[in-house]
Amino acid sequence: MDKVTIKDIAREAGVSITTVSRVLNNKEEGMSNETREKVLRVIEKVNYQPNQLARSLVTKRSKMLGLIVPNISNPFFPELCRGAEDEANDHNYSLIICNSDDQLHKEENYLRLLKEQQVDGILLSSKDQLSETNKMQLRESKIPFIIFDRGEEGNQHSGVFLDNEKGGYLAGQHLIALGHTQIACITGPKNIHNSQKRLSGFQLALKEAALGLPEEFILTGDFKMDTAYQLAKEFLKNNRVTAIFACNDLMACGVYQAAHELGIRIPEQLSIIGFDDIPLITALIPKLTTIRQNTYEMGRKAIELLIHQIEHESSERVVFEPTLIVRESTKQINKVGGVDI
Amino acid sequence: MDKVTIKDIAREAGVSITTVSRVLNNKEEGMSNETREKVLRVIEKVNYQPNQLARSLVTKRSKMLGLIVPNISNPFFPELCRGAEDEANDHNYSLIICNSDDQLHKEENYLRLLKEQQVDGILLSSKDQLSETNKMQLRESKIPFIIFDRGEEGNQHSGVFLDNEKGGYLAGQHLIALGHTQIACITGPKNIHNSQKRLSGFQLALKEAALGLPEEFILTGDFKMDTAYQLAKEFLKNNRVTAIFACNDLMACGVYQAAHELGIRIPEQLSIIGFDDIPLITALIPKLTTIRQNTYEMGRKAIELLIHQIEHESSERVVFEPTLIVRESTKQINKVGGVDI
Repeated sequence: MDKVTIKDIAREAGVSITTVSRVLNNKEEGMSNETREKVLRVIEKVNYQPNQLARSLVTKRSKMLGLIVPNISNPFFPELCRGAEDEANDHNYSLIICNSDDQLHKEENYLRLLKEQQVDGILLSSKDQLSETNKMQLRESKIPFIIFDRGEEGNQHSGVFLDNEKGGYLAGQHLIALGHTQIACITGPKNIHNSQKRLSGFQLALKEAALGLPEEFILTGDFKMDTAYQLAKEFLKNNRVTAIFACNDLMACGVYQAAHELGIRIPEQLSIIGFDDIPLITALIPKLTTIRQNTYEMGRKAIELLIHQIEHESSERVVFEPTLIVRESTKQINKVGGVDI
Repeated sequence: MDKVTIKDIAREAGVSITTVSRVLNNKEEGMSNETREKVLRVIEKVNYQPNQLARSLVTKRSKMLGLIVPNISNPFFPELCRGAEDEANDHNYSLIICNSDDQLHKEENYLRLLKEQQVDGILLSSKDQLSETNKMQLRESKIPFIIFDRGEEGNQHSGVFLDNEKGGYLAGQHLIALGHTQIACITGPKNIHNSQKRLSGFQLALKEAALGLPEEFILTGDFKMDTAYQLAKEFLKNNRVTAIFACNDLMACGVYQAAHELGIRIPEQLSIIGFDDIPLITALIPKLTTIRQNTYEMGRKAIELLIHQIEHESSERVVFEPTLIVRESTKQINKVGGVDI
């Protein structure tokens, strides 16, 4: 066979053209696995390469979405990938993932690559705010896109966001309700919008309780475990606090390590509260109290919005609410001997 | 501008055609950021879509590689992604990642998708052994590919593998050297080759020391934390062992939780050894003793082999050696009162 067509494949597999077309377009619900495999085998045997461009011209769709994440090593993002992929698959789209490694340069390259690959839409979880180049790329490419979380963009773009300020506020309220007054906070990088919001929400809660957060009790981290470990170890050697708010769970892990090495018991001598509720955090002992964002559902919602935008050209912003998850790492301190909450 | 060429872009940006070409082909080393941004801006402004196919016809390369991983939620795989991406970028390739979610159906779909997208090569970290359809797809697509780890394929395919049997053997030797004789093992799924090898290596070490591993001390898990937690909790309620070998670190986390809830102290009353050395494991207290595989380097090596295969058509198999990393979760038991190792 020289120029193989969809007809030839249908004849060879003993199925209808519609069946072959359904397999090619990932619309296989209700088809027996046997039929599907048979078609796939013939497709491979004859080395049929459906003309992506020709197909796109008919369906106007590649049925492929792109997702750019800033740091695949933070377990927050695999959760996002899972949610995004499940939702994409439910709508018969495939998802390809690109890791920008917190580098603007890579983010721009991947945006270009996804455009060249003619994805139908892009979910962009940017390093932080969109760069001017990003914005231009997205505007000019005319590919529907959705912004995820990092990099609040006012009302400019449709996307899925978390109310980070409220999250920080909840963390502050919780520690205050437990009677803590000597509190430190480890933030993400100074210039990252999400981190600023978490801190300002936290400060607001403290201010409402007429408590202060001295400048020297605000430690600037980078959302990574090891840096938080170093910062916390140095800080805890020289300062007396009864509670620490870590602006993400990875940094809370670093504080656990530091406390462990200094012989400081959690939560008896030090309460710790994190942010994110990443899946692996359940492995920590004592279990971490944290501000949860439902990353999986946020990933699903983001793809839902994206597909809606692709198919109906309308756009939307959705803000998720964080919730306080009380576990074992925070404790009441204003009673003698300490009483569990 | 109606039909924009690379010449038009060079003129508009005030740079040479070579410079534009370098930007398009991601060969930007030594170029000032300013120049690069200028070219990118013009490209976006004129909405220049380099004809991917035409470019491929000239360079015969899309400079894009595909990576399929079975489960992005296991922190083992993000490490692989990072290594693979760094190596790909060093050679001016981009990497797109697909998550098959341990489903053969998705694996096959993504293989087809990557082929349609005309990637230059594929790194496949399969669920386990390659399916017949997988093999046919890879054979017929004529795209260079490399197998990663799961699914040992004898000498059939080039790839990067771990000596899993040796890893299991090292774990057994370590526990024996510490005086343990009552030992249990939590494995991965029964039909997964890697898990079988880890178990058989472990059994070999015990056999050499004239120790047995009773059938009822082999718990069949699924490489996930929660299942291991359930299994370990039930098991530890009803059996007395002094050590457990978990066939991956995630399952070791589950054993930690179970021991914690049952009031069993690690390592004083129970030694635990894991497998993988995933990055987040350093957050566990006490720190986990484990069998380390250098996932990041394995990812790098796999892409190195893949690019070599793309550019020189030669193929190779590389087997990595695991190493024992002694931390705090295993302890000598044959002395009264217990002595730290």
